[in-house]
Amino acid sequence: MQKILTYLVLILLSAGSLSQEPEKVIASIFEESLTDTTAYNHLRYLCKNTSGRLAGSSASLKAIEYTRQALIDAGSDTVWLQKVIVPHWVRGFEECRIFSSEMGEYDLSVSTLGLSTGTDLEGIKAEIIEVHDFNKLKDLGRNRIEGKIVFFNRPVDNRLINTFAGYGGAVNQRISGAAEASRYGAAAVIVRSVTQSLHDFPHTGTTHYPDDIKKIPAVAVSTVDADLLSCWLKKDPTLTVRLLTTCKTLPDTTSFNVIGEIRGYLKPEEYITVGGHLDSWDITEGAHDDAGGCVQAIEMIRIYRSLGIKPKRTIRAVMFMNEEISTTGGKTYAEEAFRKGEKHYAALESDRGVMSPRGFGFDASGPRLEKLQSLAKYFVPFNIRDFDPGGGGSDIAPLKPLGALQIGYIPDVQRYFFYHHSANDTFEQVNIRELQLGSAAIASLIYLIDLNDY
Amino acid sequence: MQKILTYLVLILLSAGSLSQEPEKVIASIFEESLTDTTAYNHLRYLCKNTSGRLAGSSASLKAIEYTRQALIDAGSDTVWLQKVIVPHWVRGFEECRIFSSEMGEYDLSVSTLGLSTGTDLEGIKAEIIEVHDFNKLKDLGRNRIEGKIVFFNRPVDNRLINTFAGYGGAVNQRISGAAEASRYGAAAVIVRSVTQSLHDFPHTGTTHYPDDIKKIPAVAVSTVDADLLSCWLKKDPTLTVRLLTTCKTLPDTTSFNVIGEIRGYLKPEEYITVGGHLDSWDITEGAHDDAGGCVQAIEMIRIYRSLGIKPKRTIRAVMFMNEEISTTGGKTYAEEAFRKGEKHYAALESDRGVMSPRGFGFDASGPRLEKLQSLAKYFVPFNIRDFDPGGGGSDIAPLKPLGALQIGYIPDVQRYFFYHHSANDTFEQVNIRELQLGSAAIASLIYLIDLNDY
Repeated sequence: MQKILTYLVLILLSAGSLSQEPEKVIASIFEESLTDTTAYNHLRYLCKNTSGRLAGSSASLKAIEYTRQALIDAGSDTVWLQKVIVPHWVRGFEECRIFSSEMGEYDLSVSTLGLSTGTDLEGIKAEIIEVHDFNKLKDLGRNRIEGKIVFFNRPVDNRLINTFAGYGGAVNQRISGAAEASRYGAAAVIVRSVTQSLHDFPHTGTTHYPDDIKKIPAVAVSTVDADLLSCWLKKDPTLTVRLLTTCKTLPDTTSFNVIGEIRGYLKPEEYITVGGHLDSWDITEGAHDDAGGCVQAIEMIRIYRSLGIKPKRTIRAVMFMNEEISTTGGKTYAEEAFRKGEKHYAALESDRGVMSPRGFGFDASGPRLEKLQSLAKYFVPFNIRDFDPGGGGSDIAPLKPLGALQIGYIPDVQRYFFYHHSANDTFEQVNIRELQLGSAAIASLIYLIDLNDY
Repeated sequence: MQKILTYLVLILLSAGSLSQEPEKVIASIFEESLTDTTAYNHLRYLCKNTSGRLAGSSASLKAIEYTRQALIDAGSDTVWLQKVIVPHWVRGFEECRIFSSEMGEYDLSVSTLGLSTGTDLEGIKAEIIEVHDFNKLKDLGRNRIEGKIVFFNRPVDNRLINTFAGYGGAVNQRISGAAEASRYGAAAVIVRSVTQSLHDFPHTGTTHYPDDIKKIPAVAVSTVDADLLSCWLKKDPTLTVRLLTTCKTLPDTTSFNVIGEIRGYLKPEEYITVGGHLDSWDITEGAHDDAGGCVQAIEMIRIYRSLGIKPKRTIRAVMFMNEEISTTGGKTYAEEAFRKGEKHYAALESDRGVMSPRGFGFDASGPRLEKLQSLAKYFVPFNIRDFDPGGGGSDIAPLKPLGALQIGYIPDVQRYFFYHHSANDTFEQVNIRELQLGSAAIASLIYLIDLNDY
């Protein structure tokens, strides 16, 4: 009898929690997040024990196993690994030394770009030519460029308030600089790091070679050393560089997305995906990019279980693999969803760092956007005010054709590119409260999105 | 003739700048701030070369001389020092060791509270008693407390979104803990650091003794060691502490506020004050608290000069001295203003750190507040959205009776108390863009406030 009574009480409590006012549920989500350190401890583990977890690396496999267990511990109904084919690029030894008859020798702080081709063990020794955009290559022509190392040195425009816009205005040098310079016979490229910061860390990232292009080596140089190199070049235009990078592209290999879900009680066949990417660049702990996004997704599951929140739809936390190189994790996830005929209602990505939450971006317009923006009222007590059009992320974009509303989590991004793709992106750069508030904001928004139809 | 023409052109350009649309002026202020490193360099100097600039210290005199020159270099019409009488408290050697027959010995990470009385060279050795609030002292009574060291261990409530509210809920232990415990005959107090962070840094701050109270020594302990001490006490309630602190209060001494102004072209007899406090605690670089606020005020002068912005009213940048102990800088500034019959139109204080700007708080209500809040539209392009009631600061509060509108600069304060009053408040914890955006926000608001009457 005692047992039956207890059971009845539990059922009533559970029903009670379902019919609570949203304001109260959201307040409890923030309280739970702000008083628990599980997510922060997960972040510490991923940063300190799976640092450099680029797709294909052993560190990435360790991160997969760790987050699989974390999703189980968080209380997921089901946790599984989803096979993903990933490229396998590995860095080797790298050195970029400049030689000037006037100023002497100096080792630039560089990081080879992902997918770059390498040099032989002798390296490439050549003169250097500084340009700020691709038009300049055309002006100079093959005669002036052939056999030289092209130095792309256009800085990020710091006047832009949106740091992603600043990044977008300079990143083509990193992505296409090698290919463009190769068209004119360049021997290699050195690219100014794409960051608003003036510091010693080189910021890596991918470079792409179209099929018809001869691959030439490409490295990023720190902004401090880009300024130094530019300065030396003004004094000595004939200075030479020896660039050595023994990176290699190995055959594609198998990796995994890590998925945990809470089954919906009313519409289990409709899915809401919340995710970040588990891979990071090989030179970094990848705290903000994007271990933080991953642990926030896991934290959503933990919070729902801890508070007894039962979603109507099936909620998934997904750690996508290989966002940094070719987003095969996001593509594979959507392909399987399409193949199975899954109905994807909404998807949220956290991949802009885990600084203080400012709000969300929605890929919606008109009355639908207005309805989504009306949710802002629930976030006033938490000073989260930005509910803006335009949002999503590269890993959830492939779900769009399946009808998933695209949502981007938007923290304050002023300092994001000081960390992004560099060894500066460490656990210590994350503030626990900023992480916790972000987790709570995401869990709350998903709760509200699930409550009604948008 | 050439000279006269140049002069006419300059006059026309100047008039042009005066009649520019506010949107354009504000855009130019943000551009100027985001592309200049003067303020950041000032911050570096204050942090690295005047660290520990508590009122009365030699470091504070160095900071006074440095900012006086910085205000001249920024282009102030007039720069002067205003005499301020300040207390002169100096830290000595400090050590707080716990002894347990079961667990052994351990040195707690402590920092003596400002104005605390010291111990002799033998220190105080006593048993320890943990409490969470002043009522508990009453419950325990003199019998249980007399001769013991009281350990105030109430943590900051991390559930509170407003970190200042969290701070406010725990800081009475630091301010009045020694006095309250002394009433019951305690020998000394150890106070849990008032911070949302769990780390090894002790956070200092003042403690106050009413005149009728026997002064007893007071130290802050890091939150990590507060937890450790609490844990040890549970296992061994008879453990003892030896507390040694050779701090001293020397006679009051003379220091200075540093003031620079741009004379108003239309209403020079009306003043707008923008300030931060130049003193810091002796154990810290005081980057966020409050070198950042000082350099933002200097930066306003530099920006106005650089862009040729001519304020109608007289604009002052004020580095207040001795905010941390007894705010005699702010009081002296207001007393002199009162004595001279100055008309103070508005005053803005930046003393909540220099993280990303969220907005401003105004000590206003009704139609006046609404008029001030209507200025928010100018800040939309910079994602600065909070124009809320309630604002000011301890250094500008004495100007309120003179009619000055009280304005508080509000950055994102989630991580502020991780630095506040501790050795963790270093130059490296400030992001240059967050500082720059704050400077621009302040300079822009003051420009708008000066443009009309509020």
